[in-house]
Amino acid sequence: MRLLSDFQTGIDIVSERIHATYWLETGDDPQRAADVIAGEQSSGTFVALPNETPELKARSGARVEHLTVLETVGRPSLAGGIVSERYSRCTLELSWPIENLGASLPNLMSTIAGNLFELRQVSGLRLTGLTLPPSFASAYPGPAFGIEGTRRLSGVAHGPLIGTIIKPSVGLSPVETAQQVRELVAGGIDFIKDDELQADGPHCPFDERVRAVMRVVNAEADRTGKKAMVAFNLTGDLDQMRRRHDLVLAEGGTCVMAVLNSIGLVGMHELRRHAQLPIHAHRAGWGYLSRCPELGWDYAPWQMIWRLAGADHLHVNGLRNKFSEPDDSVIAAARAVLAPVMREAPMSAMPVFSSGQTGLQAADTYAAIGCADLIHTAGGGIFGHPGGVAAGVEALREAWVAAVEGVPLKQHAARHPALNAALEFWK
Amino acid sequence: MRLLSDFQTGIDIVSERIHATYWLETGDDPQRAADVIAGEQSSGTFVALPNETPELKARSGARVEHLTVLETVGRPSLAGGIVSERYSRCTLELSWPIENLGASLPNLMSTIAGNLFELRQVSGLRLTGLTLPPSFASAYPGPAFGIEGTRRLSGVAHGPLIGTIIKPSVGLSPVETAQQVRELVAGGIDFIKDDELQADGPHCPFDERVRAVMRVVNAEADRTGKKAMVAFNLTGDLDQMRRRHDLVLAEGGTCVMAVLNSIGLVGMHELRRHAQLPIHAHRAGWGYLSRCPELGWDYAPWQMIWRLAGADHLHVNGLRNKFSEPDDSVIAAARAVLAPVMREAPMSAMPVFSSGQTGLQAADTYAAIGCADLIHTAGGGIFGHPGGVAAGVEALREAWVAAVEGVPLKQHAARHPALNAALEFWK
Repeated sequence: MRLLSDFQTGIDIVSERIHATYWLETGDDPQRAADVIAGEQSSGTFVALPNETPELKARSGARVEHLTVLETVGRPSLAGGIVSERYSRCTLELSWPIENLGASLPNLMSTIAGNLFELRQVSGLRLTGLTLPPSFASAYPGPAFGIEGTRRLSGVAHGPLIGTIIKPSVGLSPVETAQQVRELVAGGIDFIKDDELQADGPHCPFDERVRAVMRVVNAEADRTGKKAMVAFNLTGDLDQMRRRHDLVLAEGGTCVMAVLNSIGLVGMHELRRHAQLPIHAHRAGWGYLSRCPELGWDYAPWQMIWRLAGADHLHVNGLRNKFSEPDDSVIAAARAVLAPVMREAPMSAMPVFSSGQTGLQAADTYAAIGCADLIHTAGGGIFGHPGGVAAGVEALREAWVAAVEGVPLKQHAARHPALNAALEFWK
Repeated sequence: MRLLSDFQTGIDIVSERIHATYWLETGDDPQRAADVIAGEQSSGTFVALPNETPELKARSGARVEHLTVLETVGRPSLAGGIVSERYSRCTLELSWPIENLGASLPNLMSTIAGNLFELRQVSGLRLTGLTLPPSFASAYPGPAFGIEGTRRLSGVAHGPLIGTIIKPSVGLSPVETAQQVRELVAGGIDFIKDDELQADGPHCPFDERVRAVMRVVNAEADRTGKKAMVAFNLTGDLDQMRRRHDLVLAEGGTCVMAVLNSIGLVGMHELRRHAQLPIHAHRAGWGYLSRCPELGWDYAPWQMIWRLAGADHLHVNGLRNKFSEPDDSVIAAARAVLAPVMREAPMSAMPVFSSGQTGLQAADTYAAIGCADLIHTAGGGIFGHPGGVAAGVEALREAWVAAVEGVPLKQHAARHPALNAALEFWK
């Protein structure tokens, strides 16, 4: 088994190891650069130390597992590094003995994504992958609901959850928000979320909003038996988040939402420990972590850390979105969310597709990820339907039926008037 | 008074506003790009919404306060944006009414540093400044110790705290760590810190390390009356951090350390609420937030958020450091840490200089920041002294005396043998 390495440490125990992969660009000799990175992130420093003995290094040093030079270029992607005539672009895999840090997500962050990005040996560095030993799954239980729990609470047994976001993002009062929700639940929507900007501002206090919205959602559920899942954005300080969660639970709500980069890992872990509802995880700020391709994070390792910390739903943008992210990146992100965290602990979570979405992206999305265990949110794609919200929801749902059954959209639309009408304005 | 804006909102109250400045590069018309960013981060979205009324927009919309085009370039810094023949680089100031979010640091993050980095209108975006209204100071008390409290606890009334970092970063046992500390405190050092990689790994458990180190530190304090400040890295989950803090306190320790990007804002705020000791804040991971100059964060707004959350000491790298950061960036970071968070609440904190530091950087550092309210850590610059650690500490301290008194280093060294000897190996 790969994850339980058979490496014998200096203190003669069989050690678990953490593996991380990087895209590296360096003006230095690639092997030397890899050694410097491994040293900086474990027992080494800029100068040789008399007490960094061979035994200490064998026990605690990070190891360069693989290094492959892909190409060389004439200019560095990022300034400030070693000046050279050519810069080597490589894939690099490092590993660390878990004895250095234990199964701790915060300390994992410092180890795999700490000072290394600032090294002079680096003119580009991006964390591309992460493989964790099973002890992390013992320390962190992961999502409490995942795909199965979300389907159970939302009453959507098959296909995607058809969802939307309250708009305008901010500015509506609690009563105005509830009015919008009334229209949506009457239209049969499965999922509604607050915008990431809407948490507990004085103009739309969380408690009032939850009470107003849940009155509407509960009334509809009493009438029809279907309770829409509403992800209330409880992002805030810890006591606030706990109290807000309890209010949502008490009012009969079935989901809470948090902005990951805003609360941080400790906040997420504590929310997970407290929560009795699925946690809808928003990635606002992801752009500053990822938009320079030669720096920062790929989504695969990033989302893995947040799933261990307890995220049930994770945003992945959407195909042909209104932002700057290309489709291949969106697909890679969604596949990462649907992949197991580790063989011993899959920690299933649901990808959330959003941004400029309509039924036109259903078939391509399904083809790319091979399942419909997802939340598909649309704004204009639902509200813009000439037949109203119910027809908009139905059209998006039928587009997914066509996608899953492999029927061309136009052919399916011929038998479904709501979808047929949608094809006109989705263009 | 600028911070309490006299802007009349649609609901006729005088509103506090949050101001953030950005460096923006866009392939779009700059004014339109600014409007899109302001809209995305408040009441707008990609399409016009019937319920985004003029009243709602006046009340809740972000406002473009200033926009200045600096230059145009022929190629975009970041891919994925609007394709154009020229890209305008601008300074942009936005403001938000506090009614949108309240005085909440996590929600401030989502607002000033959320989805905007991913917009197509953006081919470069960097958050450069932040001005917060006084209600944030009411909600967040800031550092509990700051400069004055750190001087009191360390017994260093004037000049910098002379410090060092335990090396190798990881790999030493608790007993070996304490041996290194014994040498350092016998040499009269003011400050010692764990490496950011060393928290509570099985090979060097936190509790054992603290007990072993504090035995040495307390014994020296009993003997000499001087207790070195040791920043123990308690980074971890919340219960772990609280328990570790309590152990440090019980053992007579005077400082704890946390890695900000690893624990996140909620973790820091909770640690601050619990702590009775200064919090030494490490910025590991800062590279992925900052190393692409056209993306991410300047240090000034970033450190302000963490000071509000309670950081007493903040790392700023060092002049002529071993990393890739240029000196002007280091100076700007240090000045930001020494500047008040706001006039009504200065929230004093101490900058921490490190990386390849010796007494040779003292005069330039002093000249750049105009004070000695800082921690200056050196590794080789102290341990490498031929006269031993005590001479190394003395040499660095005397270099600062010379800097503050405006005496040339060589002239001062003529009267101080330890400094004189250091000048040889610091070269």
